[in-house]
Amino acid sequence: MLNHNIETFIGCDCAYQEADTVLFGAPFDSTTSFRPGARFGSRAIRSESFGLETYSPYQQADLMDCAVLDSGDLELPFGAPKRALAGIRERTAIILADGKRPFLLGGEHLVTLGAVQAVIQRHPDLRIIHFDAHADLRQEYLGEELSHACVLRRCWELLGDGRIHQFGIRSGDREEFQWAKEHVATRLFDFEGLDRTLAGLGAAPVYLTVDLDVLDPSVFPGTGTPEAGGVSFQALLDAVLQVCQRANIAACDVNELAPIYDPSGGSTAAACKLVREMLIALSK
Amino acid sequence: MLNHNIETFIGCDCAYQEADTVLFGAPFDSTTSFRPGARFGSRAIRSESFGLETYSPYQQADLMDCAVLDSGDLELPFGAPKRALAGIRERTAIILADGKRPFLLGGEHLVTLGAVQAVIQRHPDLRIIHFDAHADLRQEYLGEELSHACVLRRCWELLGDGRIHQFGIRSGDREEFQWAKEHVATRLFDFEGLDRTLAGLGAAPVYLTVDLDVLDPSVFPGTGTPEAGGVSFQALLDAVLQVCQRANIAACDVNELAPIYDPSGGSTAAACKLVREMLIALSK
Amino acid sequence: MLNHNIETFIGCDCAYQEADTVLFGAPFDSTTSFRPGARFGSRAIRSESFGLETYSPYQQADLMDCAVLDSGDLELPFGAPKRALAGIRERTAIILADGKRPFLLGGEHLVTLGAVQAVIQRHPDLRIIHFDAHADLRQEYLGEELSHACVLRRCWELLGDGRIHQFGIRSGDREEFQWAKEHVATRLFDFEGLDRTLAGLGAAPVYLTVDLDVLDPSVFPGTGTPEAGGVSFQALLDAVLQVCQRANIAACDVNELAPIYDPSGGSTAAACKLVREMLIALSK
Amino acid sequence: MLNHNIETFIGCDCAYQEADTVLFGAPFDSTTSFRPGARFGSRAIRSESFGLETYSPYQQADLMDCAVLDSGDLELPFGAPKRALAGIRERTAIILADGKRPFLLGGEHLVTLGAVQAVIQRHPDLRIIHFDAHADLRQEYLGEELSHACVLRRCWELLGDGRIHQFGIRSGDREEFQWAKEHVATRLFDFEGLDRTLAGLGAAPVYLTVDLDVLDPSVFPGTGTPEAGGVSFQALLDAVLQVCQRANIAACDVNELAPIYDPSGGSTAAACKLVREMLIALSK
Amino acid sequence: MLNHNIETFIGCDCAYQEADTVLFGAPFDSTTSFRPGARFGSRAIRSESFGLETYSPYQQADLMDCAVLDSGDLELPFGAPKRALAGIRERTAIILADGKRPFLLGGEHLVTLGAVQAVIQRHPDLRIIHFDAHADLRQEYLGEELSHACVLRRCWELLGDGRIHQFGIRSGDREEFQWAKEHVATRLFDFEGLDRTLAGLGAAPVYLTVDLDVLDPSVFPGTGTPEAGGVSFQALLDAVLQVCQRANIAACDVNELAPIYDPSGGSTAAACKLVREMLIALSK
Amino acid sequence: MLNHNIETFIGCDCAYQEADTVLFGAPFDSTTSFRPGARFGSRAIRSESFGLETYSPYQQADLMDCAVLDSGDLELPFGAPKRALAGIRERTAIILADGKRPFLLGGEHLVTLGAVQAVIQRHPDLRIIHFDAHADLRQEYLGEELSHACVLRRCWELLGDGRIHQFGIRSGDREEFQWAKEHVATRLFDFEGLDRTLAGLGAAPVYLTVDLDVLDPSVFPGTGTPEAGGVSFQALLDAVLQVCQRANIAACDVNELAPIYDPSGGSTAAACKLVREMLIALSK
Repeated sequence: MLNHNIETFIGCDCAYQEADTVLFGAPFDSTTSFRPGARFGSRAIRSESFGLETYSPYQQADLMDCAVLDSGDLELPFGAPKRALAGIRERTAIILADGKRPFLLGGEHLVTLGAVQAVIQRHPDLRIIHFDAHADLRQEYLGEELSHACVLRRCWELLGDGRIHQFGIRSGDREEFQWAKEHVATRLFDFEGLDRTLAGLGAAPVYLTVDLDVLDPSVFPGTGTPEAGGVSFQALLDAVLQVCQRANIAACDVNELAPIYDPSGGSTAAACKLVREMLIALSK
Repeated sequence: MLNHNIETFIGCDCAYQEADTVLFGAPFDSTTSFRPGARFGSRAIRSESFGLETYSPYQQADLMDCAVLDSGDLELPFGAPKRALAGIRERTAIILADGKRPFLLGGEHLVTLGAVQAVIQRHPDLRIIHFDAHADLRQEYLGEELSHACVLRRCWELLGDGRIHQFGIRSGDREEFQWAKEHVATRLFDFEGLDRTLAGLGAAPVYLTVDLDVLDPSVFPGTGTPEAGGVSFQALLDAVLQVCQRANIAACDVNELAPIYDPSGGSTAAACKLVREMLIALSK
Repeated sequence: MLNHNIETFIGCDCAYQEADTVLFGAPFDSTTSFRPGARFGSRAIRSESFGLETYSPYQQADLMDCAVLDSGDLELPFGAPKRALAGIRERTAIILADGKRPFLLGGEHLVTLGAVQAVIQRHPDLRIIHFDAHADLRQEYLGEELSHACVLRRCWELLGDGRIHQFGIRSGDREEFQWAKEHVATRLFDFEGLDRTLAGLGAAPVYLTVDLDVLDPSVFPGTGTPEAGGVSFQALLDAVLQVCQRANIAACDVNELAPIYDPSGGSTAAACKLVREMLIALSK
Repeated sequence: MLNHNIETFIGCDCAYQEADTVLFGAPFDSTTSFRPGARFGSRAIRSESFGLETYSPYQQADLMDCAVLDSGDLELPFGAPKRALAGIRERTAIILADGKRPFLLGGEHLVTLGAVQAVIQRHPDLRIIHFDAHADLRQEYLGEELSHACVLRRCWELLGDGRIHQFGIRSGDREEFQWAKEHVATRLFDFEGLDRTLAGLGAAPVYLTVDLDVLDPSVFPGTGTPEAGGVSFQALLDAVLQVCQRANIAACDVNELAPIYDPSGGSTAAACKLVREMLIALSK
Repeated sequence: MLNHNIETFIGCDCAYQEADTVLFGAPFDSTTSFRPGARFGSRAIRSESFGLETYSPYQQADLMDCAVLDSGDLELPFGAPKRALAGIRERTAIILADGKRPFLLGGEHLVTLGAVQAVIQRHPDLRIIHFDAHADLRQEYLGEELSHACVLRRCWELLGDGRIHQFGIRSGDREEFQWAKEHVATRLFDFEGLDRTLAGLGAAPVYLTVDLDVLDPSVFPGTGTPEAGGVSFQALLDAVLQVCQRANIAACDVNELAPIYDPSGGSTAAACKLVREMLIALSK
Repeated sequence: MLNHNIETFIGCDCAYQEADTVLFGAPFDSTTSFRPGARFGSRAIRSESFGLETYSPYQQADLMDCAVLDSGDLELPFGAPKRALAGIRERTAIILADGKRPFLLGGEHLVTLGAVQAVIQRHPDLRIIHFDAHADLRQEYLGEELSHACVLRRCWELLGDGRIHQFGIRSGDREEFQWAKEHVATRLFDFEGLDRTLAGLGAAPVYLTVDLDVLDPSVFPGTGTPEAGGVSFQALLDAVLQVCQRANIAACDVNELAPIYDPSGGSTAAACKLVREMLIALSK
């Protein structure tokens, strides 16, 4: 009779057994080097999703028809990246073991590493598609190897050369860009070539990681390190839909929303819409 | 000798008898379902208009040469939509009866209904051109029929099929979009086809209603329900100028500015500029 | 295995059958006349309560030892005060019928009326203790009788003379203060005389309503109508503990937190702490 | 029939001929050395006064019964202190010449000088009562003599030794405090001795200048230079009422509200309430 | 052993003797007529530059390889435009005399005049390229000739007809646009024709002044007078790079960042990135 | 000739060799469990100190007469508490070895541990005076022992029973308060007994740690975990002056300012003033 306070991303309250995709949040931002706050990203996406409709006029489909469960946020220790990554890895592995697709909401970008560690156990031939403003390819940052600024470099150590495809990159240091030329495929500034990349991937299992700061700060001010000159919402939406519809997505994440820098709520609203579209596209 | 505090939209202090267009504000937002604050929209547009010039380099004309009076805000009861609509209807009817064009500043989008109720008394063949992110076509919302989410549906009850032309729509539930197909003309996402629509309208009287959230939240964060993927300021300005210059505008409104979500003031500035351009275009 | 997103006020997840006190939220603010936003109050109190401990060094007791269930927020229609009050009345009546104490989190102050309507059915000899900056005793406000500015006047119509005890009042119009002299007991500015009032009440059933704007705006900026010259947190805490420990509380509420005006989060934190202390005191 | 947008401080719309007190605003802050924004103070006080009642439970009197006109803001040139002061001086002189009491709303504290220049023409035996956090007694600041940091020093040049009575001062450089000992009466931190000062003034004409930053930043964050350790609202209210009721106030001002630093609106609300109480006290 | 707090724009700590370009800030905004705060622009650019990399993927070059010194902010008197301009002029002249290129960070746009006064002493045949939303060509503003709204008019008095090339202008009064037709080259709204202008300039010495409000307020909300309909970051970056690479830049400035209106930090980040790109392009 | 950008706390630019007290900042907040941002505390204190005078009317002394050097911020790795503590320990040890008093500006409260580790090497009989809202005595928090919530427990492991004196504590879990009774001296809510404590300490070396959230959130909203019911600025100032003047302070710190939650700047201003007063008192 009395309603309880189960809060999920809008329309994602499928029973676990029946879910195809399982959302979960990783509220962690301890290695953020500039402005922290991404720990509140997953929670904001969940609670503000009620400003959104479940129906997509873009795909002419309804999230209510998709088998998605939002299983809530992990409880992660701040200041302890190793243990936080272990928690993410464990949750990801369970969802995969149950035959479902994990969909991780960050948190800072380092959280991707925990998920990728689990996914590669099941899919040794994994590829990563990476949308971001920053290359995130440093060997270490201020002496730490477990840092948001190194996350794709750590992933590369698991995947090897030629398996990471970056798009939209517009920031990095000289060494990162030089290193990138030999080890990963980096498209600067936009999504040109994504079509070819997808064609080349065929049925290979893909991990899609979306650092929302790939968006222009005008569209997405709510992030720790705004970087001018990013892509439009429409461009990112098109790219993401293309990937979700054409690639064999084993798991994915959306990260780096820091709602404290978004007083108008527009960044959170953009993140919510993107997640809805991804969930619908993955269900098709 | 001492100046008094008459505050009007910049340059709109024509005497009532000589005015062609009469601005008035409807500070009402009681049915807003997500984030309230549009009640402060008309006041912000008025007070921040002093950051604007009266001259338009777009139209090479000056608002000082137009016969416009800003007659201030209505005093409306909060929590009482029926009475609020009656107040708006009455003010609109008086302005029309005096042979002038009403220009309503919201407030939430429900205020449009009060104005349309008055206009259709004088112009039974009225058409509506509707720019918005949201379809606003629900039969009821949380059990209420007088809600911002239903306002165009209520207008349709007055106008009938084929008389409402929507542009820029990018949000709604499945039922709204299905219903829309049979009763109104809905253009998703942008203004394509506006030219044809205007050609088809000929000299029919038109009510133009602009929900400012048709703009992308990057351009217009100051609104209750930001919806990613909107149009640019330039696109909306072009569309609005086209309508104001080509259609036979009986009355119009601009609504849904909620300045509290706009700490930089950019949304209010955009609204002010759009109102200036509309006023100049209507006077030509 | 996977945690779900049940969100309650910290530590208030007792089973309904075993609960002595049942929290619920009424996210409604449609009659707010100055600055809206109290609709987000109950949700903020719930979600920010995790910054709080369950243990009280003031009472040397722990909320974990109290039998409290937070049953979540009602879904209320905006712009429809009558129906919103009906929803609150119904929820309150059910909790009372089950032998538990309702604890309502607003929302604007009008929500109190719904709860009082239900409580007086069971306790015709009800008294109200009212902490507030504003007298809330108008006959009508902008033509409406169901308004936050009239809520205690509406309650008086149910209770009659001499049954409402106001403290901390520092704002009202002349008519309210004149009317108050004959019908209610109004203590201006502070809590002097509360001890005597409690002694006089004996075992009579009491409804305690706390409009948080009784606090000084320095302590509690997050409210629609800040009114300088209010009481300190310590003074309110002392008063509230006294009432909860000595009076026979049939039901109670805490209202008028509008988190949008509280960028530091201090107002929400103060509200959370007050609610914790009330819950512990009621359980003793 | 249509209301115009005359905006005054609440209830202050008396005809000029019948007014005893005339409010006017000086939106100027060009010499502010730390954080500007006081230029928007008078406008905020005016527009937010509608959140206030006209009745004072402190004085049991109503502003509606007082003969006050709010004559609006001056138009002052930014970056030109001499001309701005001339504008203030002129307006003050006209009001005085018409037998009325000027009540100036700043703007930064330098505006006081313009008013004092006019008042001393009529009242050569003028005294100043000065409530402030800062001594404002420098000979020059960054090479400029017309600076908010020098305003009382400039006033002293007009009045001479022993005619300025400062209270609440808690900031200044060593030279200011040394100089002060020989030329003005400075009470640090609070209002102790105000009673004696008022007794000593007798019927002498007094200019009261209230720099609102005398309040603690908790009560009044909305100011350019917050200085910890200030007085409470109640303490300032008591002091101001004492002065307005006992001294022969020739003119007065309230200044240094910078609403941009006051996101909750509590500072503006405090300023509004203080102005209301002063206006009522002056009318008794 | 202990690090001191030398704060410079990232990577700009070359010794003065070896520097080709010398950055300095002019924290002045006393003539700002709408919303002040540009005085904090240079400081914000400097301190937030640490969120940026020194490497440019646009130019494939690193700021670390450029000989730039950031020499800090001038100390300027508020409310005294003449003396502030003298300070800027003096600093500019010294840098020029030492054979280096001055790069001025505002502050409001009036600061440009001080720099231009110094540059024209050395380069009597100076041209100005001016990117801005506002024409800034008034003869006087509120009676003052030294105002941000007049700064290009003052420059014209030094340079004469046909030597000022404006781009992106979308605001001004009728008189400014009429006057502009005869005396300067004004391109409305965008950068069309910049290529031709640069070709025409040849090796003439050029002063480049970038008022950042030429950007759309979505990209750059952090400014005193947001003006809808501006250019994108990419468009401005392209234009600026073209000028810096092709013209003979004697000196330049970037101004009108007011960080207080930029709660997300995106405007400051955009300004930082633009300054980095200009510095690298100037060094090539 | 050109000034460089050395930024220090106001007036603290003594040469290192001559300094008695050396300020340094530890911009670290990776273990913050609720709302991060204290990493920006030391920088805000430094840069906003220019709104303050160097002269203290409280102590009638000038910071300019004290031998203090502000040596800037450490560069610390985020997400790596052990290494961050090592950096703080090392800097503290060097300052101590040079015969000077370290004064640490946080950062989150965990930074205290690094400093205490160094101080106890030199002063094995060290005592800690601890002002805070939170007991910070947990054995572990979310599985981590190096957490702000455990910092005084870690210090106790170094000092042993009866050597830590807490004041102002108003939050903790039941276990902390029980544990505290046997191992440390905890005064709840205020500073009562401080006088006796100081008398008992005699000439023993003392480390003073001030968690600024001991202040009421009205006075100090700019902190990660606001806790209602704190002390006033005056009470904290009195307590701190007493300690600095009477105890033998070996080292001290001020921490937990998170300026992002302090839009008005009042919290930073309060922190600056407290630091100034402590520096002057320590120099006497």
